[in-house]
Amino acid sequence: MLTFAVEKTDSLARLGRMELPHGTVHTPCFMPVGTQGSVKTLTPAEAADSGAEIIVCNTYHLYLRPGHKRVRAAGGLAKFIGWNRPILTDSGGFQVYSLAALTRVTDEGAEFQSHVDGSRHLFTPELVVEIQEALGSDIAMCLDECPPYPVSRPVAEAAAARTSLWAERCSRARQAQTNLFGIVQGATYADLRESSAKSLTELDLPGYAIGGLCLGEPSKVTYDMVGRVALVLPVDRPRYLMGAGYPEDIIAAVRLGVDMFDCVLPTRNGRTGTAFVSSGRVAIRNSRHADDLGALDPQCDCYTCRNFTRAYLRHLFVVGEALGPKLLTLHNVRFYQRLMQGIRTAIEQGALESWSSEFLDRYRSSAEPAGEENGR
Amino acid sequence: MLTFAVEKTDSLARLGRMELPHGTVHTPCFMPVGTQGSVKTLTPAEAADSGAEIIVCNTYHLYLRPGHKRVRAAGGLAKFIGWNRPILTDSGGFQVYSLAALTRVTDEGAEFQSHVDGSRHLFTPELVVEIQEALGSDIAMCLDECPPYPVSRPVAEAAAARTSLWAERCSRARQAQTNLFGIVQGATYADLRESSAKSLTELDLPGYAIGGLCLGEPSKVTYDMVGRVALVLPVDRPRYLMGAGYPEDIIAAVRLGVDMFDCVLPTRNGRTGTAFVSSGRVAIRNSRHADDLGALDPQCDCYTCRNFTRAYLRHLFVVGEALGPKLLTLHNVRFYQRLMQGIRTAIEQGALESWSSEFLDRYRSSAEPAGEENGR
Repeated sequence: MLTFAVEKTDSLARLGRMELPHGTVHTPCFMPVGTQGSVKTLTPAEAADSGAEIIVCNTYHLYLRPGHKRVRAAGGLAKFIGWNRPILTDSGGFQVYSLAALTRVTDEGAEFQSHVDGSRHLFTPELVVEIQEALGSDIAMCLDECPPYPVSRPVAEAAAARTSLWAERCSRARQAQTNLFGIVQGATYADLRESSAKSLTELDLPGYAIGGLCLGEPSKVTYDMVGRVALVLPVDRPRYLMGAGYPEDIIAAVRLGVDMFDCVLPTRNGRTGTAFVSSGRVAIRNSRHADDLGALDPQCDCYTCRNFTRAYLRHLFVVGEALGPKLLTLHNVRFYQRLMQGIRTAIEQGALESWSSEFLDRYRSSAEPAGEENGR
Repeated sequence: MLTFAVEKTDSLARLGRMELPHGTVHTPCFMPVGTQGSVKTLTPAEAADSGAEIIVCNTYHLYLRPGHKRVRAAGGLAKFIGWNRPILTDSGGFQVYSLAALTRVTDEGAEFQSHVDGSRHLFTPELVVEIQEALGSDIAMCLDECPPYPVSRPVAEAAAARTSLWAERCSRARQAQTNLFGIVQGATYADLRESSAKSLTELDLPGYAIGGLCLGEPSKVTYDMVGRVALVLPVDRPRYLMGAGYPEDIIAAVRLGVDMFDCVLPTRNGRTGTAFVSSGRVAIRNSRHADDLGALDPQCDCYTCRNFTRAYLRHLFVVGEALGPKLLTLHNVRFYQRLMQGIRTAIEQGALESWSSEFLDRYRSSAEPAGEENGR
């Protein structure tokens, strides 16, 4: 139910093509985040128009509301949310640790209290697979234990071991057609990362993710971990770096052999007033834009850049109109798709190194101070 | 700069065509409200796709932010907000009384404190015309004094007299090409309404509005006032009932000879979870919709009704996704345009009475309790 072909390489970077039940995904790809079944502020038509071929939804959120059985009864998640393309569902492990209260993790699973109504739940590897199968996810993720950064070696070691144990149980529990990805843990310890990747590889899963990074550690450390793990993972399976969102991080990880990305940055920053543009980042509320009759990004072909001035976009944010966050999100999501298209074309042409330098030189030319956060 | 032709009548109802600088408007028409330069949650393309040919923006709000001079420098309001169709701007009189603090009204004008930053301003009839000319409004409204409901006769009389005085000053102040509408006041006193309408008519303005109604008075009173005023106003000028928003009120007023309507109901109710559908009103958060895989309104051709179930729309509202308010707004705005299209076709066919009965029988068949408000 998942086929992946590497069609071209440029040094370690890979141009790939992934076939999934709901359609084709060209890699390296960026997956906009639609946690609760909506890429925030966008209609599915707008998300598709951006060029996104796959989005990420969240098992934890959808299990709590509206409930996976309700989604199954509605014909699966893609049909329920009106997105006729592939969906990857994160397992919810990360959200259990970051959002839920009173989490208690044992080898059995993660017990937590809902952030919505305080009810108690137990996520086992088996249940998490069952939920994602009810959702009809094109790609399901194993339940993992994702420690925060920084974390001690013993804690990281235990979490990686438990993640491997759970991956095995997930793999046993899944139906044959379920495309299950394992998640490499090991925090910032190179040997733990490598052994985690090796142990998951033995499960012969259709794809592998690198979790537990992009949590505040220095970029150098992120890249070091990613590079080491990528060398261990099988070359014929897609590799997904979870939560990596800055353009510079995506470019670096692609050059280390990563194929898939997701992050809340384009949507969250769009909602809060920061746009990603060719020349860097723009804080649209800044008064310098009050009379700026130019486009947000003159290089961009999105609806926002084709139709509105920075002055109008700033006005919308200043007065609190919902259209402001929406138009910036629309642009940011398109920006990321154009970034990935640029990367794919560069790999195709064997020119990723020079393309990356040019992109980053321009991108770093006029970044404004902005208050965005990283985050998976 | 405004031509208006009544093309057909059906009893007192009129099918008309209004030519304005930014385009044609078929009447009776409903104008979605875009107070601050945005029909809330919708892109201009979506507002246009609904069939709306004209929207209403607000002088008070746009004067405060972003400022009319800034809008003029950007090429006028239509260009600034990316709406390539006619715009009517309300004068801001109503907002000065309802939103601003410490309003002091004299014959000179209305002095008020901004609800944004507390700064003090004086709206004179001349300034309000100047602002609307800077905005490049297709239709500008006179400054009026709009008393609340209920109000004593002496207060109503003074407000109507001052409104006439101000209308004369507005008319003298305007440039030749400015399409200025007078506003009939007089609260719920029939003779005051009639004399207000007569005195404004003497100014020979291109159109007339009926203000100060739909403020909580019984419908019977509203209709009585509208009917009396409509008989006084010149037959060859468009008539605009300000703030009338319930479908039943619009139908009743059309049948009394009104041509133009605006109201925040479709947008405000959409944002807060109430949809207008063929069979009445739907409170989408209601748990009865949790597993409803039917369309919001099976009779409707909007994007929302073509692509999503009530179950998904409810989910979006329950979890607080911005897409929910947007999809319901999109539907409601389209519902109102379909209502007006139905009215126009019925007048064309000389069948407004029977069409109205059928529409209202269906519309009243299954209204759910909902918490919407009226409001200009």
